[in-house]
Amino acid sequence: MKDVKVIEIHESVFAQNEKQADLIRKKLWEQGTYFINVMSSPGSGKTTFLTEIINMLKQKISIGLMNVDIESDLDARRISEKTGIPSLQIHNGGLCHIDADMVSRALIEYDTKDMDLLILENIGNLVCPAEFDTGAHKNIMLYSVPEGDDKPLKYPLMFQVCDIVLINKVDTLPFFNFDLELAIQRIHSLNPNAVVIPISARTKEGLESFITWLKEHMEGEKHEAY
Amino acid sequence: MKDVKVIEIHESVFAQNEKQADLIRKKLWEQGTYFINVMSSPGSGKTTFLTEIINMLKQKISIGLMNVDIESDLDARRISEKTGIPSLQIHNGGLCHIDADMVSRALIEYDTKDMDLLILENIGNLVCPAEFDTGAHKNIMLYSVPEGDDKPLKYPLMFQVCDIVLINKVDTLPFFNFDLELAIQRIHSLNPNAVVIPISARTKEGLESFITWLKEHMEGEKHEAY
Repeated sequence: MKDVKVIEIHESVFAQNEKQADLIRKKLWEQGTYFINVMSSPGSGKTTFLTEIINMLKQKISIGLMNVDIESDLDARRISEKTGIPSLQIHNGGLCHIDADMVSRALIEYDTKDMDLLILENIGNLVCPAEFDTGAHKNIMLYSVPEGDDKPLKYPLMFQVCDIVLINKVDTLPFFNFDLELAIQRIHSLNPNAVVIPISARTKEGLESFITWLKEHMEGEKHEAY
Repeated sequence: MKDVKVIEIHESVFAQNEKQADLIRKKLWEQGTYFINVMSSPGSGKTTFLTEIINMLKQKISIGLMNVDIESDLDARRISEKTGIPSLQIHNGGLCHIDADMVSRALIEYDTKDMDLLILENIGNLVCPAEFDTGAHKNIMLYSVPEGDDKPLKYPLMFQVCDIVLINKVDTLPFFNFDLELAIQRIHSLNPNAVVIPISARTKEGLESFITWLKEHMEGEKHEAY
């Protein structure tokens, strides 16, 4: 492409926070709390998805939710209203991510010791949250059909750091030029180990498969040490 | 909501770059180049939109495009292929935004002096790009129907810094629970001066209205000084 010129403008602003993340992972593991970090673009359906899966799980296990938002408490409120579980709204002062230090501070305020599952609903953003280990045992990404099948090419790190990618809103596939096979192939070329499940939080398609995956990890990994 | 607890975790990492932005605005204005900054979520349709409007305008005015991406040059390539205009791909090293300093450095590499219109296709992100003045004369936001009508509540700064909000993919309104009137009302409660135009880059609905707005500003504002 002779008409495309490429220049590199680099800057390093991200601090290492992996040690702190490891401490969180270990502490929560030892107290029997499995911690998952849910990331996505704005509007990919995280809140609807979380409401559905919490309602499917809450009779059997104890669940807590930490929601990160710039300034509203809309999502924490919605999920709490629709599921009855306690939630913590974290305002991070306009930052684009949450890191292990912020999670540590939130855990001082939020009593998680009787929780089987702690969910972090990260900020809607495909760039920054991918760069900061939050201390979660698993990273989950929601990637919605209307966003287009090219997103793995454009936001590779997000797809690389996720253990599972849930392709949401598959009930809208007929209305968009989204090649599901191509999208899955692109995800696997970045991250061959990523589990990919097509879902629709609205129609509940695929949610049982996700829950099976989650339970296997919550139980299976009890043999692992963090 | 007794079940929602709110804590504040603040950090300040953003440097002031307004002086540099003012210099860019002034320099480009004096050389007769109108500079627009296009922001949105990932997958809101920026590339399709830009391809369409460039093709509608390129016979009458000279246009250049700077595309910011984390590492690919996919969008710059696509737009260049489909419009024939020259484009500059800026890799910003994984950062979530572009600031006036990065624009200044890009302008050293990119010869804009004969351009009537310079377009910056910002990174797909509703958080960080809103915080940095790029030196553009106008900020344009694409906000797509599948993202949901609550986005102004969750990403208020983005809606506050934009001069015009284009609600894209309105051809998919029948398939989503998106209240167009409510979305417009929410935008105006944050930013009463924002122009809001419903569009579909795919069906071209609304694109003429946007071009009318753009031309009025490019011409009308020739009487203003930057």
